[in-house]
Amino acid sequence: MNNFSYYNATKIHFGKDQIARINEEIPHDARVLITYGGGSIKTNGVFEQVVAALNGRTIFEFGGIEPNPHLETLSKAVDLARNKQVTHVLAVGGGSVIDGSKFIAAGALYPNDLWEIIETNGKYITQALPLGCVLTLAATGSEMNKGASITRAETKDKLFFGSVHVFPKFSILDPTTTYSLPVRQVGNGVIDAFAHVVEQYITYPINAPIQDRIAEGLLITLIEEGPKALQNPLDYDVRANLMLAATIALNGTLAMGVPTDWASHMIGLELTGLYGLDHAQTLAILIPAVWYFKKEQKKAKLLQYGERVWGLVDGNDEDRAVAAIEKTRSFFIQMGLPTKLCDYGLDHSVIPTILAKLEQHGLTKLGEYKDITPADVKNILELAL
Amino acid sequence: MNNFSYYNATKIHFGKDQIARINEEIPHDARVLITYGGGSIKTNGVFEQVVAALNGRTIFEFGGIEPNPHLETLSKAVDLARNKQVTHVLAVGGGSVIDGSKFIAAGALYPNDLWEIIETNGKYITQALPLGCVLTLAATGSEMNKGASITRAETKDKLFFGSVHVFPKFSILDPTTTYSLPVRQVGNGVIDAFAHVVEQYITYPINAPIQDRIAEGLLITLIEEGPKALQNPLDYDVRANLMLAATIALNGTLAMGVPTDWASHMIGLELTGLYGLDHAQTLAILIPAVWYFKKEQKKAKLLQYGERVWGLVDGNDEDRAVAAIEKTRSFFIQMGLPTKLCDYGLDHSVIPTILAKLEQHGLTKLGEYKDITPADVKNILELAL
Repeated sequence: MNNFSYYNATKIHFGKDQIARINEEIPHDARVLITYGGGSIKTNGVFEQVVAALNGRTIFEFGGIEPNPHLETLSKAVDLARNKQVTHVLAVGGGSVIDGSKFIAAGALYPNDLWEIIETNGKYITQALPLGCVLTLAATGSEMNKGASITRAETKDKLFFGSVHVFPKFSILDPTTTYSLPVRQVGNGVIDAFAHVVEQYITYPINAPIQDRIAEGLLITLIEEGPKALQNPLDYDVRANLMLAATIALNGTLAMGVPTDWASHMIGLELTGLYGLDHAQTLAILIPAVWYFKKEQKKAKLLQYGERVWGLVDGNDEDRAVAAIEKTRSFFIQMGLPTKLCDYGLDHSVIPTILAKLEQHGLTKLGEYKDITPADVKNILELAL
Repeated sequence: MNNFSYYNATKIHFGKDQIARINEEIPHDARVLITYGGGSIKTNGVFEQVVAALNGRTIFEFGGIEPNPHLETLSKAVDLARNKQVTHVLAVGGGSVIDGSKFIAAGALYPNDLWEIIETNGKYITQALPLGCVLTLAATGSEMNKGASITRAETKDKLFFGSVHVFPKFSILDPTTTYSLPVRQVGNGVIDAFAHVVEQYITYPINAPIQDRIAEGLLITLIEEGPKALQNPLDYDVRANLMLAATIALNGTLAMGVPTDWASHMIGLELTGLYGLDHAQTLAILIPAVWYFKKEQKKAKLLQYGERVWGLVDGNDEDRAVAAIEKTRSFFIQMGLPTKLCDYGLDHSVIPTILAKLEQHGLTKLGEYKDITPADVKNILELAL
């Protein structure tokens, strides 16, 4: 096991009727900015519960935070927070709303140009407004970590920042809020969580059996529960298990002392930034391609994964490694996410553009060995055509 | 899954040479009380590393914190902390030193009689000196939680308190500090961690597959690595995996949304308080006895445990449930912990005394169903004779 440091400051309130606990977490004299996305929270009862819990506080609203939230949109929310002397930010939504709200919370107190937060990965953030979250989509894990992805629409840059100051102070995880999600978002959420696990697991063995087994437990749970959520959207236990899986998948537990890959995420961010694919769709395309390209380096973990998660014990190592990748691909498709660029109307002509963006962002050494070059990314994308 | 709240504020620095990070975590103008136990840290190099990392701070020492730390001892440390205007407590040791130091950290700022902290389970603690830990024994998990067990030697009461104010601000987990532990403490530590897992796992099914699989992963790891630590004390990876297992076993992860038992712990605390048995020894005695007594209620989880952890698939349910208990007993013995009261020189004559102490402490409804009465405890202890 490698050395590591771990810290996670987010308090979780998990379960039915937990939205009311906002009342315990935000002071009565707070000036609260409620942030949200397309407005589904106003039709599914979540917004009403939030407002009821905030009874007596001064409330402001900022809706319309889009998927892959835009700097341009979030800057308006920062202006609002400053103008209204907001003291607390309460994000109500999924990963995009929470990511965007981390930016708003830090941006409201940031003295320099807001884009600097992204350009410097949040390095110079020294404070943020306290952030609370009401999660309505099990997917990104943003509700219990310090990271966020932000897009500059003007230049199609989707980039990442992180800071301990933007850890949510609390997050409410009520699985019933996910009952009314569209099928596409359910599938995306499951695959997003699945991808977070494998990016921290399908690398190389480092004698970290606990982290491995937690990863395998999360993957088996996602594989078992994901299809049930599509078939029976109102099954509480299914929704609860998926929500907890997605949160643990990226709250720092799996990364303790192990190598991590993240190549599929890095390449995928460019695909989303340039062509607007859903984040999970990019992962469904890239993970099988990266695994085929790195099959020899990743073989030991692919075989362990194949056996423990998929029960693959027959055939030689090569057969089982391939079977593990194809089982994964089939699961992505089962959850509604095709795994080839052509399925999304993209062909080989996009490859130079993606490579140029990766170079522009300095992402020229990817993967757990930092050995995936732009030439390798070209090969990976060709495997995904 | 049940509703739950989760919060854990401890930062972990894990690995070789991490003791030096104390320098990042404690301010230079701090007045630091270093607390420790029997003094082994002064012969194994740990104390030197701690003092080097504290370079420049004003240091005070309080050694001699005994196993099952005594209120009487800790009160002296509280006096020292107050008299010397200590600003930070740095516990260097295992669970007893850390538990005791939680008491010292809270006690130093406690306005009332110190025993009230224990009597009221820490309910009225409103502040504590910031506590850091250098863990030297993988066992109790105290390095990453808010609880502590304290003994009043005078009356042989071993009781528990907890408070969010005594979460360690940071804990250094350097597996090499455990190389020089006596065999008995290694065995005790493994069984202590094992017991923490099963108290939160061998209850009844509640459709919490993630928590179950994390528990099973920890148990398998302890079963695989524990004997290796006895055979090859200087194997870094073995020590690291055990240390991480023990920390996760009681940092709140496993308790998320599931029923918990703790009957063996509650009865065991009395055995330690009255007769001085090591904490882990009491667990090795009580866990098989409680499981036999509650075999029907616990059968579903015993069978799942038997299959997933011990690979037990042959025979009928009754056979496999018994086999799971006996596999567990064998593992305790393998780690050096006999599992019968008579192995420790105790016979049926102790039973009334233990029952009286449980009644005195109000512990008359134990287990995940709160249905274990003093009459049941009598039966359980008779199964352990």
